[in-house]
Amino acid sequence: MQFNPAEYVGLTAGALTTAAYLPQVYKTWRTKAVGDISLIMYSAMTLGVFLWFVYGVLLRAPAVIIANGASLMLVGWMLKMKIKYHGRDRAKKREPKLP
Amino acid sequence: MQFNPAEYVGLTAGALTTAAYLPQVYKTWRTKAVGDISLIMYSAMTLGVFLWFVYGVLLRAPAVIIANGASLMLVGWMLKMKIKYHGRDRAKKREPKLP
Repeated sequence: MQFNPAEYVGLTAGALTTAAYLPQVYKTWRTKAVGDISLIMYSAMTLGVFLWFVYGVLLRAPAVIIANGASLMLVGWMLKMKIKYHGRDRAKKREPKLP
Repeated sequence: MQFNPAEYVGLTAGALTTAAYLPQVYKTWRTKAVGDISLIMYSAMTLGVFLWFVYGVLLRAPAVIIANGASLMLVGWMLKMKIKYHGRDRAKKREPKLP
């Protein structure tokens, strides 16, 4: 592992870009409403963040590994919730509205 | 610039994570509706992606520079639209609904 001053810039960057997912994850976890969540977007994001993680390992860049490891848990969780609650959400929409 | 095989992994990662923003940018550009867009999230994201770009320059990592340069344009544009259309969106909500 090479730990040069640039890693502090990377860790600050990673804290910001990872934290930006938190409100969405919290909202989805609380409401379990995933109708407006894009499956394609979160599939691309999960694969992309996973590849950034691999890239960080190949380059031995700590900030890239730490930030994308944390982001991967969040976007992976979003993808899991989307798949898990998708059917439930659709079923709810098909129910007739009661007065 | 060092261009080793790891950069291909990084460029694929960058293509995926950057492309994931496109549907949101397109939707906001088309509808100009920014009421559900989080100002704090896009502010954090813009600053975070900018710092990733700086980190890429410091590390001389082409994939980090290219991917975050592209992402910065998209999230920066989102932030600009949020600030530009925010007042308009709020004003519209205050208007009484006509029959």
